Amino acid sequence: MTIKAYGAYAADKPLEPLAIERRQPGPHDVQIDILFCGVCHSDLHTVRSEWGGTLYPCVPGHEIVGRVTAVGADVAGFAVGETVGIGCLVDSCQHCPSCAEGLEQYCENGFVGTYNGPTHEAPGHTLGGYSQRIVVDDKFVLKIRHPEDQLAAVAPLLCAGITTYSPLRHWKVGPGKKVGIVGIGGLGHMGVKLAHAMGARTIAFTTSESKREDAKALGADEVIVSRNPDEMAAHEGSFDFILDTVAASHDLNAYTKLLRRDGTLVLVGVPEHPHPSPDVSALIMKRRAIAGSLIGGIAETQEMLDFCAEKGIVADIEMIPIQKIDEAYDRMQKSDVKYRFVIDNSSLVE
Amino acid sequence: MTIKAYGAYAADKPLEPLAIERRQPGPHDVQIDILFCGVCHSDLHTVRSEWGGTLYPCVPGHEIVGRVTAVGADVAGFAVGETVGIGCLVDSCQHCPSCAEGLEQYCENGFVGTYNGPTHEAPGHTLGGYSQRIVVDDKFVLKIRHPEDQLAAVAPLLCAGITTYSPLRHWKVGPGKKVGIVGIGGLGHMGVKLAHAMGARTIAFTTSESKREDAKALGADEVIVSRNPDEMAAHEGSFDFILDTVAASHDLNAYTKLLRRDGTLVLVGVPEHPHPSPDVSALIMKRRAIAGSLIGGIAETQEMLDFCAEKGIVADIEMIPIQKIDEAYDRMQKSDVKYRFVIDNSSLVE
Repeated sequence: MTIKAYGAYAADKPLEPLAIERRQPGPHDVQIDILFCGVCHSDLHTVRSEWGGTLYPCVPGHEIVGRVTAVGADVAGFAVGETVGIGCLVDSCQHCPSCAEGLEQYCENGFVGTYNGPTHEAPGHTLGGYSQRIVVDDKFVLKIRHPEDQLAAVAPLLCAGITTYSPLRHWKVGPGKKVGIVGIGGLGHMGVKLAHAMGARTIAFTTSESKREDAKALGADEVIVSRNPDEMAAHEGSFDFILDTVAASHDLNAYTKLLRRDGTLVLVGVPEHPHPSPDVSALIMKRRAIAGSLIGGIAETQEMLDFCAEKGIVADIEMIPIQKIDEAYDRMQKSDVKYRFVIDNSSLVE
Repeated sequence: MTIKAYGAYAADKPLEPLAIERRQPGPHDVQIDILFCGVCHSDLHTVRSEWGGTLYPCVPGHEIVGRVTAVGADVAGFAVGETVGIGCLVDSCQHCPSCAEGLEQYCENGFVGTYNGPTHEAPGHTLGGYSQRIVVDDKFVLKIRHPEDQLAAVAPLLCAGITTYSPLRHWKVGPGKKVGIVGIGGLGHMGVKLAHAMGARTIAFTTSESKREDAKALGADEVIVSRNPDEMAAHEGSFDFILDTVAASHDLNAYTKLLRRDGTLVLVGVPEHPHPSPDVSALIMKRRAIAGSLIGGIAETQEMLDFCAEKGIVADIEMIPIQKIDEAYDRMQKSDVKYRFVIDNSSLVE
């Protein structure tokens, strides 16, 4: 079946309307008509091939909320009319140790991304959520239990939400822990909401004084303006865990030294230019660690969605029609969004 | 009391004989006549003030084995004639959270090093094991249970041994784990022996083909010459844990990418010039970590000594009289020692 989508034919071309094919649902497939799709920095990096390796035409989008419009004969868990989500993954090998543990994002044979991933179907790579419809194996479909009027704001949970939730859970953030979130953007604002909801003492780091009140409104118990050396120094050696959502190259030592013994700084963004080499003695002197974390597995993504539904957590969003996507990219690059753009996919028919 | 020692009066001066004072044992003190003292890279860095902050005269040495020759009135755990050890620490605050957990090396108020540490006694900083005698609070004295003929080779356990034992234990190295040890020198050769004795599949990394057989003799199940890209590539994503004992600046990515998901690369040496900035995507894509580790606490050092006594583990050493210390430093800088120099402290009386 042919559907409408928005995508780019080359790295130096703007996004434009295009027609793409979706497969007829197989026995294990769920067909989803897309309501909303969040706009992630990865979309922009991929469309413009800033990480290299982009296959064209490229249709981005991996923060998808929609309605089930058909299910395959062997699909037991989903029914037509249900509200569901698709995140960053649409397939994985299902038999390696990581898949067996429900950590499909670390699939030893390589997961299949929701866009720009390998597939036997035309055009040879997956096409994402800037489109009217998607057909996905039921193992990668998520249940959405938020109320109807929050569905647009649920979309960013599928990437920004799980990318911050997974490391917070893995490193056991909760009551009694002092947790820092660096960068109050698409990811960071979710990190603040989630860490707060998990019961941790949550401190937001921002470079701009202007975001201090905003960060408190998101749930931060305290806000540190990282350009203020005195504020930073007052917290030396006191954090159990710091989640750094800033992908731009920056000084990691500013944060490692705020960690207490056995504390961990987790990075979730890959900088275009390397961070300055972190100070090894800061790691040695307090057995600190710098680690990375990648999105989350399907089971954990469902757990995160249920946690957010129970706690009433959604992203703070600005809704756009697909026709404004280039403008949204430009504003996103300037951090001029609070805190995530979400596409109203009904605009695709205009 | 005045005793003989060997030390330096300035960063650019060679070590020479000097006379130093030791306190009369207080109620909690143990007086130890030193038999042997291992020669650690830190000794050289400190004597030459390569890390800055060295106080002179400087008497290095923190791998000390000796005999108890007097005990204070309140010392219950040690008796005259016993063989004991002193490692890198001779005091700590004893009341911070780290001290309370027996992790005196991470004392929040700063531990007192065996040399170049703060003390109220003359000359205002501690003086180490290149000396005839030392007087230490009984909390920092360790029992040596190795046979008499191994005592010289026990000395390096007090720093090189515990520096490798502590991270191997902390990150739960044991049967079923694949563990790498990078650098086969003073620290690394202990790392290989200890990881092997803990039951891990132990792989030694060395830059030189010539050390391949030596590393196997130490207990490595396999040896990888790190300059051979094919050998390295064959092990990608397969290590649970890698202990990197190389302090010189080098490419950490070569090792992080050998780690499996959730694996950790632990650094125990501070490079003079920073390592190239590690690749963040290698951390993110498999939730890997780079961490640091500092020596070990007193309880863990005793545990390590007992483990080594039980397993018959000592260092491979080359014994020297104190008069050859400058030559030993020169050779150590060229890695021309298998694998640790140990001073025969009886040479101080010559």
